[in-house]
Amino acid sequence: MTRVWLDGRLVAPDRAHVPIADRGLLLGDGLFETMRVHKGRAFDLDGHLARLESGLRILGFARAVDLARLRADVTNYLAAEGASEAALRLTLTRGAGPRGLAPPEEPRPTIVMTLSPLPLARETPVSLWIATSTRRNELSPVSRAKALPYLDNLIALQEARAHGAEDALMLNTRDLVACASVANVFIVRDGRLETPPISDGALPGRMRALLLDLAGEAGLTPMEGSLCPDALAGADHMLLTNSIRGVVEAGSCNGAALQRRAGVVVARLRALIAARVERA
Amino acid sequence: MTRVWLDGRLVAPDRAHVPIADRGLLLGDGLFETMRVHKGRAFDLDGHLARLESGLRILGFARAVDLARLRADVTNYLAAEGASEAALRLTLTRGAGPRGLAPPEEPRPTIVMTLSPLPLARETPVSLWIATSTRRNELSPVSRAKALPYLDNLIALQEARAHGAEDALMLNTRDLVACASVANVFIVRDGRLETPPISDGALPGRMRALLLDLAGEAGLTPMEGSLCPDALAGADHMLLTNSIRGVVEAGSCNGAALQRRAGVVVARLRALIAARVERA
Repeated sequence: MTRVWLDGRLVAPDRAHVPIADRGLLLGDGLFETMRVHKGRAFDLDGHLARLESGLRILGFARAVDLARLRADVTNYLAAEGASEAALRLTLTRGAGPRGLAPPEEPRPTIVMTLSPLPLARETPVSLWIATSTRRNELSPVSRAKALPYLDNLIALQEARAHGAEDALMLNTRDLVACASVANVFIVRDGRLETPPISDGALPGRMRALLLDLAGEAGLTPMEGSLCPDALAGADHMLLTNSIRGVVEAGSCNGAALQRRAGVVVARLRALIAARVERA
Repeated sequence: MTRVWLDGRLVAPDRAHVPIADRGLLLGDGLFETMRVHKGRAFDLDGHLARLESGLRILGFARAVDLARLRADVTNYLAAEGASEAALRLTLTRGAGPRGLAPPEEPRPTIVMTLSPLPLARETPVSLWIATSTRRNELSPVSRAKALPYLDNLIALQEARAHGAEDALMLNTRDLVACASVANVFIVRDGRLETPPISDGALPGRMRALLLDLAGEAGLTPMEGSLCPDALAGADHMLLTNSIRGVVEAGSCNGAALQRRAGVVVARLRALIAARVERA
């Protein structure tokens, strides 16, 4: 059984607890990162830590976290557990605080890391549903941080499941596509690889950044641009991306089949990602 | 030292922990209520439990919670601790779950209750700042639930504090006033007691409901109506309300003094609230 990293100690999963005064629990006051571990190393660790730091600045406790130390913690944890292929979740909260919303002057963050088996590669395309019960709030800086609260995404996912779909497409407050419940969204269209901009409420996903970086090598022009839900039907291909699952194809949206005419390019993107992961 | 109620057991505060797999910690997947305890009883307990139930329906795990049992738990906890005057926080999460966003089919909620001393009555008016760094998302049903995530409110509060103010006024995505960081907002104007509607992103506060109920007895016409920030300067009086602090006056907004011409009515409202609390 893999152990849990809890504030510098390795503990058995059934003994891994946080105090009920932890602001991560009380107020959602924290961040997380999910990373793919390959051959014992966390892929794109620097990119994930940079995003974490950006989130810490948004929440206002960057000073309380030593990122170099955190980097070493990740390495030490993976080595101690002999992890080879796995999904790593790093959770960082502002730690315990007194009653109320105002944060402590000198936060003592809680750091938790867990390892899970990687999910099986997804072979069949995903069915999507455009959630209308909630909106992603692109007007909040929290939309740019991988923060603990995922309630809107959860509500969107539950709506999608209730309609027989596997995942939700989330719209922002102006009804533009922002993301899926745990993934960024891309379309291939007219030789471009398009994805909603961060300002539309898209999380700055690390796999998203990698795809934008690799698009040229796959023969596509990368582009960040607002995406109307109406545009999906006319796209050559639609993709969902995250750090654990990589690139997953979308097969339908609201019951209507989506086009999948860029299979060759998708395969090339996947191969380029695999090569990056291997090389890292 | 007051003990903590944790899933039916009374435990010392330093032994009150939740597993790191709790979805309240991992995803903000839970709700809370804060109640005023007076003479050993939770004031407006039924109202708070009704709001909790409404939040459970929004999050989709109402079936997993026995509200009659929860009601008895509150009573038993207060009796066991001999609580007389206190602030009671009840936290309810969806409990532990497997990796990922999708919730377990049969959630086993975590229930935590804590008691804290009531804050001292606030004598001086509060200074406010209209936060522009984030917006309250009235397009999300989460805005109508007292859900664990409070990051937008926290960011707004930190912005206010950075500008030397004590609390933040939060705007919604259409730039209408929604609430303060942990309070509902009222203005007295032309004989009316006005407050933003729930559809503008105001939390359905229990003290808010009580004030709307008591307005008539205080000689005011209660009204739910959208509130532009520009309207504050012209109001006779501005108030903040929550279950713990009751009614608090606002004294200034963005450095400019607010009018406080309805002191007599405010005193009457406070007396009516005190009478309700006493009678309960």
